[in-house]
Amino acid sequence: MSNSIGQLFRVTSFGESHGHSMSVVVDGCPPGIPLSSADMKSDLERRKAGTTQGSTTRLETDEVEILSGIFQGRTTGAPLTLMVCNHDSDSLHYNKKFAVPRPGHADYTAWVKYGGYNDYRGGGRFSGRITVGFVLAGTIAQKVLALVGVDILAHIVQIGPIHAATRFTSQSDMPRLLERCRQNPLYCADSEACTHMLALLEEIKNKGESVGGAIEGIATNLPVGLGEPVFDTVEGNLAKALFAIPAVKAVEFGAGFGAAGQTGSQHNDAFTMQNGHITTSSNHAGGILGGLTNGMPIVLHVAIKPTPSISKPQNSVDMVSKEPVVLTVEGRHDICIVPRAVVVVEAMMVITLCDFALLAGVIKPMRPQ
Amino acid sequence: MSNSIGQLFRVTSFGESHGHSMSVVVDGCPPGIPLSSADMKSDLERRKAGTTQGSTTRLETDEVEILSGIFQGRTTGAPLTLMVCNHDSDSLHYNKKFAVPRPGHADYTAWVKYGGYNDYRGGGRFSGRITVGFVLAGTIAQKVLALVGVDILAHIVQIGPIHAATRFTSQSDMPRLLERCRQNPLYCADSEACTHMLALLEEIKNKGESVGGAIEGIATNLPVGLGEPVFDTVEGNLAKALFAIPAVKAVEFGAGFGAAGQTGSQHNDAFTMQNGHITTSSNHAGGILGGLTNGMPIVLHVAIKPTPSISKPQNSVDMVSKEPVVLTVEGRHDICIVPRAVVVVEAMMVITLCDFALLAGVIKPMRPQ
Amino acid sequence: MSNSIGQLFRVTSFGESHGHSMSVVVDGCPPGIPLSSADMKSDLERRKAGTTQGSTTRLETDEVEILSGIFQGRTTGAPLTLMVCNHDSDSLHYNKKFAVPRPGHADYTAWVKYGGYNDYRGGGRFSGRITVGFVLAGTIAQKVLALVGVDILAHIVQIGPIHAATRFTSQSDMPRLLERCRQNPLYCADSEACTHMLALLEEIKNKGESVGGAIEGIATNLPVGLGEPVFDTVEGNLAKALFAIPAVKAVEFGAGFGAAGQTGSQHNDAFTMQNGHITTSSNHAGGILGGLTNGMPIVLHVAIKPTPSISKPQNSVDMVSKEPVVLTVEGRHDICIVPRAVVVVEAMMVITLCDFALLAGVIKPMRPQ
Amino acid sequence: MSNSIGQLFRVTSFGESHGHSMSVVVDGCPPGIPLSSADMKSDLERRKAGTTQGSTTRLETDEVEILSGIFQGRTTGAPLTLMVCNHDSDSLHYNKKFAVPRPGHADYTAWVKYGGYNDYRGGGRFSGRITVGFVLAGTIAQKVLALVGVDILAHIVQIGPIHAATRFTSQSDMPRLLERCRQNPLYCADSEACTHMLALLEEIKNKGESVGGAIEGIATNLPVGLGEPVFDTVEGNLAKALFAIPAVKAVEFGAGFGAAGQTGSQHNDAFTMQNGHITTSSNHAGGILGGLTNGMPIVLHVAIKPTPSISKPQNSVDMVSKEPVVLTVEGRHDICIVPRAVVVVEAMMVITLCDFALLAGVIKPMRPQ
Repeated sequence: MSNSIGQLFRVTSFGESHGHSMSVVVDGCPPGIPLSSADMKSDLERRKAGTTQGSTTRLETDEVEILSGIFQGRTTGAPLTLMVCNHDSDSLHYNKKFAVPRPGHADYTAWVKYGGYNDYRGGGRFSGRITVGFVLAGTIAQKVLALVGVDILAHIVQIGPIHAATRFTSQSDMPRLLERCRQNPLYCADSEACTHMLALLEEIKNKGESVGGAIEGIATNLPVGLGEPVFDTVEGNLAKALFAIPAVKAVEFGAGFGAAGQTGSQHNDAFTMQNGHITTSSNHAGGILGGLTNGMPIVLHVAIKPTPSISKPQNSVDMVSKEPVVLTVEGRHDICIVPRAVVVVEAMMVITLCDFALLAGVIKPMRPQ
Repeated sequence: MSNSIGQLFRVTSFGESHGHSMSVVVDGCPPGIPLSSADMKSDLERRKAGTTQGSTTRLETDEVEILSGIFQGRTTGAPLTLMVCNHDSDSLHYNKKFAVPRPGHADYTAWVKYGGYNDYRGGGRFSGRITVGFVLAGTIAQKVLALVGVDILAHIVQIGPIHAATRFTSQSDMPRLLERCRQNPLYCADSEACTHMLALLEEIKNKGESVGGAIEGIATNLPVGLGEPVFDTVEGNLAKALFAIPAVKAVEFGAGFGAAGQTGSQHNDAFTMQNGHITTSSNHAGGILGGLTNGMPIVLHVAIKPTPSISKPQNSVDMVSKEPVVLTVEGRHDICIVPRAVVVVEAMMVITLCDFALLAGVIKPMRPQ
Repeated sequence: MSNSIGQLFRVTSFGESHGHSMSVVVDGCPPGIPLSSADMKSDLERRKAGTTQGSTTRLETDEVEILSGIFQGRTTGAPLTLMVCNHDSDSLHYNKKFAVPRPGHADYTAWVKYGGYNDYRGGGRFSGRITVGFVLAGTIAQKVLALVGVDILAHIVQIGPIHAATRFTSQSDMPRLLERCRQNPLYCADSEACTHMLALLEEIKNKGESVGGAIEGIATNLPVGLGEPVFDTVEGNLAKALFAIPAVKAVEFGAGFGAAGQTGSQHNDAFTMQNGHITTSSNHAGGILGGLTNGMPIVLHVAIKPTPSISKPQNSVDMVSKEPVVLTVEGRHDICIVPRAVVVVEAMMVITLCDFALLAGVIKPMRPQ
Repeated sequence: MSNSIGQLFRVTSFGESHGHSMSVVVDGCPPGIPLSSADMKSDLERRKAGTTQGSTTRLETDEVEILSGIFQGRTTGAPLTLMVCNHDSDSLHYNKKFAVPRPGHADYTAWVKYGGYNDYRGGGRFSGRITVGFVLAGTIAQKVLALVGVDILAHIVQIGPIHAATRFTSQSDMPRLLERCRQNPLYCADSEACTHMLALLEEIKNKGESVGGAIEGIATNLPVGLGEPVFDTVEGNLAKALFAIPAVKAVEFGAGFGAAGQTGSQHNDAFTMQNGHITTSSNHAGGILGGLTNGMPIVLHVAIKPTPSISKPQNSVDMVSKEPVVLTVEGRHDICIVPRAVVVVEAMMVITLCDFALLAGVIKPMRPQ
């Protein structure tokens, strides 16, 4: 507990990295929405290992089975269950050293919490593979939010010390940004930075190291007034959803940490009229005021720590004998999870916003819209 | 909805800035804990306006009434209700311009969401005054967590461009840090930086401006294994709780955004033995691995935006006539909310951790411990 | 935990029988609904002691204060808090025998659960007085449901061995039924049965006894499709809400226990057309099929046990010394709670149905309807 | 929504009668409990069609697959997913008359709620087959509750007009009652009544009819103080869980509806000492006082309506054309669901009590007990 998130659009995750499958139950999807496993193909493909530099050589076919909630090609209003079976799990590397936790991993904390009974193979529930289910749920949420025209995009803005110069600036910027991201394997809108990032990843790989990065997430065309303050704020629920992605260590909205250094006149977004609608002339708020969407694009950043599994020797301890151990992590691992996390950031954003849209009555739970 | 947070230790907030009172119901507090309104005095005092430079001149006595849940000086296991009546609310400034939203405020978003029916006086539910209730609930959570020895401390690490050099380094550091914080009105452990901050606040005030800042929050003596992955992670639930504080725009844990620039060998905290217990030799994880506490101190940072109310003229629009308006915000306002937010950060941390301790069975819900 | 009920229309109860007050927080009420404490007067009056035969002589004025959620006479979308202060609490009778549980009361179970720290005065949280808050929340729910025309009515159908002959038969029957109920102090539609019931109550009183009874609850003009199967069925959530009323020991819908003795052709309600709408020609289902409303009136019955406090001597034990004690309950008590429970049954029905209407999107959470 | 029930022991149901499978996710099961699909065999067998008189000829093998949450033969603390694939679904009878709702079924209400998009084959989510998942979850809950020694038993006390004379009388009665139930195909402790019931079922079958009945559920060896008043009462949550079983129309506890006719001295259970423990000399409360367990056995009754599908012609309407239709339900159906519901009543009881045991801290969520 708790492996569920959301109030009206509720996602329940189950499955382990090296178990039978990685799956998700989505309860609360309105009926009548066309959906097939083909709809999930492109998002799953983006999350997949081996398609980007620096990812693990574990190659999963990631075929989706829809086990429930679909009839005659449309959602029924019943819980949707989406399953991806595990095939290429290679547990040999894990079995021999189950008592020695990998630094930076959940091996130690999970072992304590579950009294040693947790499925530690491949990280079990704490593997990045859990995000397969997040992406599947995100595909459904995207279909629902599309009913009201919301668009979501995430892209890489940092790998290690290299920052992308291109950031989201305005709603009209979305198509151009999307096109740029698609032009390179890193989903980074700055093609020059991308070249440097790719070179860095090669270097990191050769060193037996790993590296972190940062992603910008954007949502546009949002109605005003989503969010359920004071505790279910748009920032709060987005952050909670994003921190469920393994390796995320920071989340900021709009000016974010930069706001700490600003004055009021620098930070405040002046209200103005545009095409008959109230809007703001800048967006330091990142589209959120008082925990509620203000109609401007949501702009957020997440920091992703370097993949903990590295081939360099690291100090650890044997949890049973309490003896120090020098650990060399074998197995197949990503040296940088950031490229694969882009679509997962999109998924967590869209899942959260879909729940808010249902809570606000913008999308009706019952009958087609 | 939703004005409640927490699963087993559940806090419900009610009241408005210029209404009858600001209050909180706390459900799930174990019975038998000694509690009186005097216990809340010092925390409320720290939150109070007028005790620090740069705060509003609205002076509330903030007398706490305990309306339920106490019998013979101890908690009963029934819901605790803590109320602070509003006395010095000065609504005159707000009444005349209810149709013109203040930039950076929730005026516009709340007006849309609630169809114009929201109590806009003093920001209503979107006022910083709502945090009175958070602090009250925090006092109770602190009493509960004290049963297992957890310590919480927050302090200012940034005001505008000025950064404090002193940060938390280790558990043994807590007493010294606490002592330093108490020595100055800003609750900043770096006395030299504090002097500069105070000068800055004076300057900001004279300019009719406001300024943001950042706070570091720390929790020590935590048991291993708190947190309920994959969705109720320690990071996720802490972040959600912290984003309920008006003006928070960013939250990071451990290395936070810095982790994006690190390599695995830089970031990973090696495991080691200390006094017979497993621990880590560094704390880039901020005390959390896999969404679970690892026994090391939780270290987090929050960014707080500048108070939106400034006396400089700002552009806005009349929400009814849709005409542009130049707005000068009158009334009494903080020019920097950060000093008053320190105790609120502590409160949201302790509320969240108390819930986790109950969920993990570390503290029992029933009968005295 | 848990002193809250409902998902979108969420009611939180606080207060004790002999404490400061009995109150309720209602979160999720849509904005813009006219509301004042005067609206609650008539329902509170119906619940009040001393207005019907057989009720306690504890006389509370039951003045309602609205502490939050109202501005300019209308709901704001913020949590509504309604409070009734306790005045006539007479705790003397309770203090002396706190170690001897009254048979049929929660004295023993609460003492064990809360480790002896519960406020036992007047039953504390387990007193029938807790239903003051239920009635207040019901008033609000009724205002919300009135937006879609739903009507609720409860009436007495049994006191001890005496059954009322008059039951609800059809939607068109509601006005007549309501009128009949109002004609007598017991809110019983069968005036002849009422006469016998009043005589019985007199007799029961003279014997130092108490007596139980049964109430029929009806809801008409419901939209089709309320309910959230498979676990949040209309029957399930109504039953849960009704069992929160102290003394309720049974709940049935439509044919109820009678359905156990029926055949399919006797029980099934044939579908038919009426005024262009699909309806059923009988209502053994009590308005609910598959856990969903079918547009026919909801008809339910609840059994209420005799008030446990009687003046006859009863066997008990001292919880501390473990010695047998013969107990004579003093204090002021109802000899029959059923007449006062009628309005509480209505309240729990309307609270539950209001939540369902919001969940189904029949009533929108945001902005006026 | 909502297809989940429980707070700490949380069961999520998915799957349709004629879809891929019927399944359940159980979140919150403590780690370290031995579990295999073989453990579910006997309970599933009891629920199965064809094993008792009067059940459908649809014969499912009901092989259970455990998809997640198990490692090395024990629960891991991660969500458990249990799946039973559908094989013998015969949808032909349903396809042709999807526009004509069967009286007594959810066909009409589901069609309206889900805008005609629901999977109506075999009743979809509203089929009795959904209880396969309930039974699977119940098996797990039973394993958890066994840690504290709780016993659960349900048995038939009525089929149509025939009542069993044998009822539960005391905790010591459990073994004898269990033995008697096992001696006949109806799980009825009164062998003479059972003979009459079997004859009745034969008669009902020949008439193309169906018939209802009633089940008594018992839980013994319960700790005192389970339950979370005022809204999560033991009665309320048990009732909610039981009403999730299709066809249940009434639930009562202890004296139940009989309490309406009792006086206080008849109903109140006197406290007494037994083997050094406080207990009551009778059990009209059905083991529950103030919504909390009092240590006495929980005794409850549920009424089950006759199976709606009968072969006799019935009046209905075409939902599209709005024309009257005389419907003869074909397909394979139970003529009496009561025998198959016995194990489902046990499952819903044990699921609910397991959640209460976790909420009360009687069973710890983390690490082996």
